[in-house]
Amino acid sequence: MTLLVVGSIALDSVETPFGETADALGGSAVFFSVAGSLIHPVQVVGVVGHDYPYERLERLARRGIDLGGVERIQGESFRWKGKYSYDLQNRETLETRLGVFAAFEPRIPEAFRDARHVFLGNIDPELQLGVLDQIHDPLLVACDTMNYWIQSKRDVLLELLRRVDVLLVNDAEARQLSGDWNIYRAARWILKHGPRYIVIKQGEYGAVLVGADGTFYVPAFPLEEVFDPTGAGDAFAGGFMAHLARTQDVSHENLRRAMVVGSAMGSFAVERFSVQRFDELTPDEIAARVRAFSELVRFDTEPFNEGQGWP
Amino acid sequence: MTLLVVGSIALDSVETPFGETADALGGSAVFFSVAGSLIHPVQVVGVVGHDYPYERLERLARRGIDLGGVERIQGESFRWKGKYSYDLQNRETLETRLGVFAAFEPRIPEAFRDARHVFLGNIDPELQLGVLDQIHDPLLVACDTMNYWIQSKRDVLLELLRRVDVLLVNDAEARQLSGDWNIYRAARWILKHGPRYIVIKQGEYGAVLVGADGTFYVPAFPLEEVFDPTGAGDAFAGGFMAHLARTQDVSHENLRRAMVVGSAMGSFAVERFSVQRFDELTPDEIAARVRAFSELVRFDTEPFNEGQGWP
Repeated sequence: MTLLVVGSIALDSVETPFGETADALGGSAVFFSVAGSLIHPVQVVGVVGHDYPYERLERLARRGIDLGGVERIQGESFRWKGKYSYDLQNRETLETRLGVFAAFEPRIPEAFRDARHVFLGNIDPELQLGVLDQIHDPLLVACDTMNYWIQSKRDVLLELLRRVDVLLVNDAEARQLSGDWNIYRAARWILKHGPRYIVIKQGEYGAVLVGADGTFYVPAFPLEEVFDPTGAGDAFAGGFMAHLARTQDVSHENLRRAMVVGSAMGSFAVERFSVQRFDELTPDEIAARVRAFSELVRFDTEPFNEGQGWP
Repeated sequence: MTLLVVGSIALDSVETPFGETADALGGSAVFFSVAGSLIHPVQVVGVVGHDYPYERLERLARRGIDLGGVERIQGESFRWKGKYSYDLQNRETLETRLGVFAAFEPRIPEAFRDARHVFLGNIDPELQLGVLDQIHDPLLVACDTMNYWIQSKRDVLLELLRRVDVLLVNDAEARQLSGDWNIYRAARWILKHGPRYIVIKQGEYGAVLVGADGTFYVPAFPLEEVFDPTGAGDAFAGGFMAHLARTQDVSHENLRRAMVVGSAMGSFAVERFSVQRFDELTPDEIAARVRAFSELVRFDTEPFNEGQGWP
């Protein structure tokens, strides 16, 4: 089933303790689609300026990314420049130049309007609503947002939430949105406002899925070398949504698996700058990492089964 | 098999956003033994002053805590006073009065010297070494420590580590000890310095076990109400060690289960002030929580099995 992403297409300049990169492919739609397309074809809607190295995007098209919704217009492309602390725990934005992204109004091409799985990357919730108005009959809508919109467009965001199936945010965003510091109470608050599921990402610690039918936690993959955390959340979303689109199954059980595929993709993303780690990544490697997640949390509950008495 | 704990016995005064308590039972040996004794008998070595409400400790003895190693001497008992921030993420120590604990020199009663499982609570590493010198033939020694000793008694601590099987610390301590901010590299560093296993506790996020034979992660239990985080780490240690002592099995597989039992005990500890939550806690409730941990992380890897191709 078709999978559509609407989000930013940027050029990232990132400094980490391990090196730096300039004008590398970045933005939510890029991380999402590069990670997701290893699992299922992705349709992209976004905007780039005349200065964007479009041939680098086109190289991605070969692997199942449909750029039919990427507008190329006169003006500068969206550029972001950031620097991470020595322990990668904090990042400082050195420069944000929105360029053509400032006036982005997503137009969904006719051919994309039948999309069944839709991911709304972090953009103005008014634009996210506008996207949904253009989609005929979505089966599963997921969206991201950020502190800026939670504060400045809260009412529109709440209107959007009523039309969203899965909200993917980080813990600070969940806290800000709900006004509750406890993430499980925050999750319950959000579930009352529309979404059937909420995914709360906790960075280096893991991610939790909360729905009426259960709670699932996947820890972050144990990595001894983390190179660049940029884009991990969008790569997570790409893996999560692509797994659901590929398997055509939005049951609770399959959402658990999607969480793990998403976490695998997030863990690959941070192993290199930009989207480089996905260049040579194979389905076998992804499946192996999913199994490694299972090994990470596996334990035998048999001695604790009901009616056994204490072991 | 016998289980011994050496640590502090304190009176805690704690302020949280939900209330406050004064001179409640506290200290590492108390949280450890109250949690652990629900699973396996615990022998306690510690010291209290003449002002300690000893009858409150004696009430604990009824449930399998042997206080034969608790010295009662002239002087004030160890008192700690702390206040948690509104979100329980930070705590401020308002007052520490070491009292008789300042001159504590653990003397292991003859009857306790055959202990097979030993937990060295967070005290001066010289004293921890002194305890080990008094134990005839320990099977499994675990210990805790803190930033103060890592900084001020590093050499003694490293000497101790060579005689310890499991080090239990939090992530900040693992980072400080190893000089590495990545907790998995920090774990590898620590494993080179003696312990066969390291348990790194990550507070509200969970805990990880790292050994030469694998890595195991258990997320923190999803709680909508966290009342008082004091003592969670020691309750964890109590559950962890008591499970190992009870089952007489220090295999990697059983250490995984011990991690979950420890996490269950930590999660109970924070549901009330002091050790109150353990008052009525039953083996069935503990087993049910262990199974709930399994449900929390469970997912079906079958579609990702080797040789299956991508699902």
